[in-house]
Amino acid sequence: MRKHNFNPGPSVLPEYTLEQTSKAVLDLNGIGMSILEISHRSKEFEGILSETQELFKELLDIPSGYTILFLGGGASLQFAMIPYNFLNTKAAYLNSGAWASKAMKEAKFFGEVIEVASSKADNYTYIPKNYTVPDDVDYFHITTNNTIYGTELKTDPTVKVPLFADASSDILSRPMDVSKYGIIYGGAQKNLGPAGVAFVIIKNDLLGNIKRSIPAMLDYRTHVENNSLYNTPPVFAIFACLQTLKWLKSLGGVQAIYKKNVEKAQILYDEIDRNKLFRCPVRDVEDRSLMNVCFVMNDEYKDLEAPFLEFAKSKGIVGIKGHRSVGGFRASIYNALPKESVITLVEAMKEFEAKN
Amino acid sequence: MRKHNFNPGPSVLPEYTLEQTSKAVLDLNGIGMSILEISHRSKEFEGILSETQELFKELLDIPSGYTILFLGGGASLQFAMIPYNFLNTKAAYLNSGAWASKAMKEAKFFGEVIEVASSKADNYTYIPKNYTVPDDVDYFHITTNNTIYGTELKTDPTVKVPLFADASSDILSRPMDVSKYGIIYGGAQKNLGPAGVAFVIIKNDLLGNIKRSIPAMLDYRTHVENNSLYNTPPVFAIFACLQTLKWLKSLGGVQAIYKKNVEKAQILYDEIDRNKLFRCPVRDVEDRSLMNVCFVMNDEYKDLEAPFLEFAKSKGIVGIKGHRSVGGFRASIYNALPKESVITLVEAMKEFEAKN
Repeated sequence: MRKHNFNPGPSVLPEYTLEQTSKAVLDLNGIGMSILEISHRSKEFEGILSETQELFKELLDIPSGYTILFLGGGASLQFAMIPYNFLNTKAAYLNSGAWASKAMKEAKFFGEVIEVASSKADNYTYIPKNYTVPDDVDYFHITTNNTIYGTELKTDPTVKVPLFADASSDILSRPMDVSKYGIIYGGAQKNLGPAGVAFVIIKNDLLGNIKRSIPAMLDYRTHVENNSLYNTPPVFAIFACLQTLKWLKSLGGVQAIYKKNVEKAQILYDEIDRNKLFRCPVRDVEDRSLMNVCFVMNDEYKDLEAPFLEFAKSKGIVGIKGHRSVGGFRASIYNALPKESVITLVEAMKEFEAKN
Repeated sequence: MRKHNFNPGPSVLPEYTLEQTSKAVLDLNGIGMSILEISHRSKEFEGILSETQELFKELLDIPSGYTILFLGGGASLQFAMIPYNFLNTKAAYLNSGAWASKAMKEAKFFGEVIEVASSKADNYTYIPKNYTVPDDVDYFHITTNNTIYGTELKTDPTVKVPLFADASSDILSRPMDVSKYGIIYGGAQKNLGPAGVAFVIIKNDLLGNIKRSIPAMLDYRTHVENNSLYNTPPVFAIFACLQTLKWLKSLGGVQAIYKKNVEKAQILYDEIDRNKLFRCPVRDVEDRSLMNVCFVMNDEYKDLEAPFLEFAKSKGIVGIKGHRSVGGFRASIYNALPKESVITLVEAMKEFEAKN
């Protein structure tokens, strides 16, 4: 029996992805070798890589002039690579959560960091608004979805400098105007595939802005010039991403999944708003994330937290314990999470309310 | 039908590893989630990580006082991380091949690099010997096995400074005296598992030598303090490594596989030495690698190269084309390559000789 898997990442993947990768681990398309055993220079992997890139471009409607990289080290390594490559004097960051804050910390190794706005004082319960990005910064960095706090920046900001976005936890969950971005990057382990690979969608023109001399593996020029094949890329993780992209296409693409995601989120937020036990800690309703739905027990029911977790577990629901910095609960409802799992959670919330 | 897979990496893995990982991709031990879907903070992954570390320690006889890290980015990222962390003024490198040379290139970003010896002028056909490592360098770096050239440094050098080794392509293939090393590192994709994870065996005492202020992801202290869990590690790749370690233990461990490796290599080198068509380009017999067996056509038979590749292919042999900088052939005979595959190759060499 499959669990109702609300893990924040690594997280639930489409059964299609699991079936296809499981098969390919035994034998890739009948070639007599496993996906784990083929050379990254083989024609099989060349095909896998280019199909993954093409499908990513098609699904997210990425204009020409961008390269899609698949790199090891996760989004956390990008926190350092971005300023190493692009922070020549100063850069602007929007501090909307713990991940944005970590990205800023790494940037400070390389230059001046201007925090244009922050919701830290309010425990990141909203996306900061009404800020000004200086025209003379090297780039402006945002985090589109804040996994821990359940907030999401659902619009594409308009700025005069290169716009960089960590979209680890909402990539391919909703349409984005990629042409407004210089870089969109993230770990794969939410909406794409297993942990162990980061995607970087980078505008080729940007490479001309790099002034530093940088070790090869940390230099975006290396990876663009070598099409992610400077060193051995995470072959299996890329193959798994391809399966998820195929699954997404078969569902109708990003517009179709976006509709499903809005519907799933609505069902859950409606119940949180209705149920006397719970409330959503996000201050501004428009900032509520479609991917990570945070909710806490109302003060008078605080002692029911642990019992609710146990109750949910008995229904096959896993991964809903909130991050320690918010407490309560967090239901991560990424692309691959079935609507049935959301309904199961909502029913558990109702049943638990009736009991208490 | 399984191919006779002589790929240099990613390369053949034990069927046990493939079967176990294929199963776990569908469902991990009946928990209702895939190995691709579990949290890296879950008790399941905690168990996997610690079992992998313990088994690695047991099999390679790693003394106490060392930490085993599993990081993204491959060995190539370690080429930069090592000098970023440990090259304070100058470091010594043994230039035994293209990978050593790449490691040196990255080190030059951080300080002075002393090449204690090099076999580059002879196209790396031997392991440089009779060199002196200065006492005042921050560390001495070696590459234990040179995948491209088929040479291997099979003894553990004795030096007065911290000894660092890239053992990507011969880790766990033969016993090593780990106590002589400060760091042993490498990509997993030869003797351990799939591409996408690097192992770093690091002596904890060394961390006190770090003087620079370093971005978190590039700082070994981050990863040691967080036991490889600062960011999301490559969960699946680590799980696959664990299966290979279990397989290795079931065979009798490193001493047992070493005996098998010596035997496999002997069968192949004997045939190369006997067969009138081929010769081994390695200058010093004692440097011949047990992992990557390079051989070329004798000059008078040069035009038989492509036909031999075709002939081998017809016997189910793949991955034996030599690297472009050496030419000819390279049979990578890592731990998981069955003796039967070596015998099949040797028979093909004999048959091809008889035909020509």
